[in-house]
Amino acid sequence: MKEFFKVTDLKQVLKYAADFPYVETEEIPLHGTSGRILAVDIVSDINLPDFMRSTMDGYAVLAQSTFGASEGNPAYLNIRGAVNMGTVPSFTVKAGEAAGIPTGGMLPEGTDSVVMVEHTEAIDDVTIEVYRSVAPGQHVIEVGEDIKKGEIILSVGRKLRSQETGLLAALGKEFVKVYKRPVIGIISTGDEVVPITDIPGQGQIRDINTYTLSGLVKEAGGIPVSFGIVRDDFDDLFEKSSTALAQTDMVLISGGSSVGMRDFTTEVLSSLSDSGHDSDILAHGISISPGKPTILAKTGNKAFWGLPGHVVSAMVVFAIVVRPFIEQISGLSPQHEKKPKLTAFLSRNISSAQGRVDFVRIRLIRKDGVLWAEPVLGKSGLINTMVKADGMIEIGINTEGLDKGTEVKVIAL
Amino acid sequence: MKEFFKVTDLKQVLKYAADFPYVETEEIPLHGTSGRILAVDIVSDINLPDFMRSTMDGYAVLAQSTFGASEGNPAYLNIRGAVNMGTVPSFTVKAGEAAGIPTGGMLPEGTDSVVMVEHTEAIDDVTIEVYRSVAPGQHVIEVGEDIKKGEIILSVGRKLRSQETGLLAALGKEFVKVYKRPVIGIISTGDEVVPITDIPGQGQIRDINTYTLSGLVKEAGGIPVSFGIVRDDFDDLFEKSSTALAQTDMVLISGGSSVGMRDFTTEVLSSLSDSGHDSDILAHGISISPGKPTILAKTGNKAFWGLPGHVVSAMVVFAIVVRPFIEQISGLSPQHEKKPKLTAFLSRNISSAQGRVDFVRIRLIRKDGVLWAEPVLGKSGLINTMVKADGMIEIGINTEGLDKGTEVKVIAL
Repeated sequence: MKEFFKVTDLKQVLKYAADFPYVETEEIPLHGTSGRILAVDIVSDINLPDFMRSTMDGYAVLAQSTFGASEGNPAYLNIRGAVNMGTVPSFTVKAGEAAGIPTGGMLPEGTDSVVMVEHTEAIDDVTIEVYRSVAPGQHVIEVGEDIKKGEIILSVGRKLRSQETGLLAALGKEFVKVYKRPVIGIISTGDEVVPITDIPGQGQIRDINTYTLSGLVKEAGGIPVSFGIVRDDFDDLFEKSSTALAQTDMVLISGGSSVGMRDFTTEVLSSLSDSGHDSDILAHGISISPGKPTILAKTGNKAFWGLPGHVVSAMVVFAIVVRPFIEQISGLSPQHEKKPKLTAFLSRNISSAQGRVDFVRIRLIRKDGVLWAEPVLGKSGLINTMVKADGMIEIGINTEGLDKGTEVKVIAL
Repeated sequence: MKEFFKVTDLKQVLKYAADFPYVETEEIPLHGTSGRILAVDIVSDINLPDFMRSTMDGYAVLAQSTFGASEGNPAYLNIRGAVNMGTVPSFTVKAGEAAGIPTGGMLPEGTDSVVMVEHTEAIDDVTIEVYRSVAPGQHVIEVGEDIKKGEIILSVGRKLRSQETGLLAALGKEFVKVYKRPVIGIISTGDEVVPITDIPGQGQIRDINTYTLSGLVKEAGGIPVSFGIVRDDFDDLFEKSSTALAQTDMVLISGGSSVGMRDFTTEVLSSLSDSGHDSDILAHGISISPGKPTILAKTGNKAFWGLPGHVVSAMVVFAIVVRPFIEQISGLSPQHEKKPKLTAFLSRNISSAQGRVDFVRIRLIRKDGVLWAEPVLGKSGLINTMVKADGMIEIGINTEGLDKGTEVKVIAL
């Protein structure tokens, strides 16, 4: 009655991500692009700014008119006029002259710099004293200094933040081509699992995984679609899986942690086909803990996951294994996806088995100015351990454990 | 022509956040709660689980039946039956007996632990050999081990992640009371600013701030509402501001960085009133750079901001000053809002003026296994410097600068 399955190395499983194609692209209004993945290179068709702009309130001058100016020996300049915001100055400025200019104003012809108003004094309506010299280009944004015409300013696969959205606004991109958010189907399984609206009978529990996985899918940039709860029944699981496969870009079956259900899931994953492509089981067991009994199949072009039923295991597998696959099909460029991680010091010794990568839930605690990672102990069936956790740490495959005080990288949860 | 304004200390400005009340609450379906702020304490009305549950596939036993068992000296147990998932076992198990049980199954009466199937061998249909002893409670989740009935499991002000949503699912919370997402009005000002759909004439630029600020509002959990662009006109600004104030929970006016516009903004902020409450200017200038010419007014119960027009300044002020106010009115508990920050080493010396807090954009670079924070140089009017930046670092108010190699905390951007 012993059960064996040959686990696949975590690194090998992660490599399979590259085998799955990107989702399609769509054009969306600029205001909705924050957090989305750019599907084209963006080349600037303008210089930004395309006129020389003041960064200060003051006077536009030819810098050489101010050379040598000081409090004791001010330069006297004639006021040639004043620049109005948003318009082209109607006059030119010569050496020895100045023009009042507001922040953001366009420098008049003949000027190359701006003297801050704080460093001047108006003598009368037509003359100012200047107490400091400025260099050419000082307090000015040059033509194309922000963005040069023809420059690739954002490249395909980049995740757009607020500032990238702002940059696209500066270029007048009312619509932007991004990758669609991948649609991820979620199926919960288990004869003991009931909908959250039910009052569970003895021996039953409410469906947690649909909710935790839906939340994680959203955080990963996907759109979760729940296909409900399937009992331990091959035909039902096969039918729901086929439907989910047809309607989504990736499917997560959670549960099936009992031997019977796991067998069903494996059988269903093997039997599925999509657009004439059969299902190919890429991994049946992964060398991680928790999360070892994870199954990954490729059906046509889509990833199909059998995740463990324990709520913690399913979340850990999602964070470590599934999420990179979602990011891959989302079109996210790997160079943009790797964020440096917070580090902390381990608050106690933890042991670990060799031959697998362990993920340990931790809480972050600041003590005496030092950030400590304190392991949250508890079985992988306990959702409260995830609620208490701020993150996870990884204990490498060839490591027997980590000593108290070891510096660890924190995977945010 | 010199202009003075008495800046308010950053810490003092941040303290004003507590003066603004929370937005209202709403009941929303559980699947939409991820990222939202809980508006009530959640007390569990059940034990989770409310039955003793197996965490393994194996045999439910009374632990003492296995004491002393080993490979060389197995315990022989009679199979009393098998537990079906999701149902109450119809039999009891005595010492010397065992019942097959799947992961997640309910332990039969008389048992207190589970022997893993890997540590057993079936001799025939009614007898198993057990090769290892188990302790009472082993491979079992006890009644209430995850959550105890009557326990406060989540407290008001907590930001809900996927795992909290899962916990609420376990309790059958189909709807959850959360704070509404605060609605934040955004007004861009400046005679040189044109809508992004326009082709800017000479001296004009497209409206960037509406887009960067909208993105930041969303990231902060708010709902941005744009009220368009206002020219340098008191009446127009007053009218748009009044409308925005009536329709939102907080208003951001960006721009007004020229003296004229700044004067208008101050005048408008002073003149506004909401529900009979006048406008009170709390800060006119903040001791930070960039972002010094920021204005904060309290009109009735609402915060009204005059942000600098430079795109970088506006973003920095948002991240450092405005965001905490949005979090405050969102009901976020301060104990949940303070996340530890990534640290890095400064890649070069930077100087800074005393008497203000400087925020320096940085790029993160990993070199020789060390994470370096490399300052991104460039004027605060250049959006590309924000696009290049991964974060910011803070240089304290009494610091003249930081030396290369100093460990710095990174404020994510």
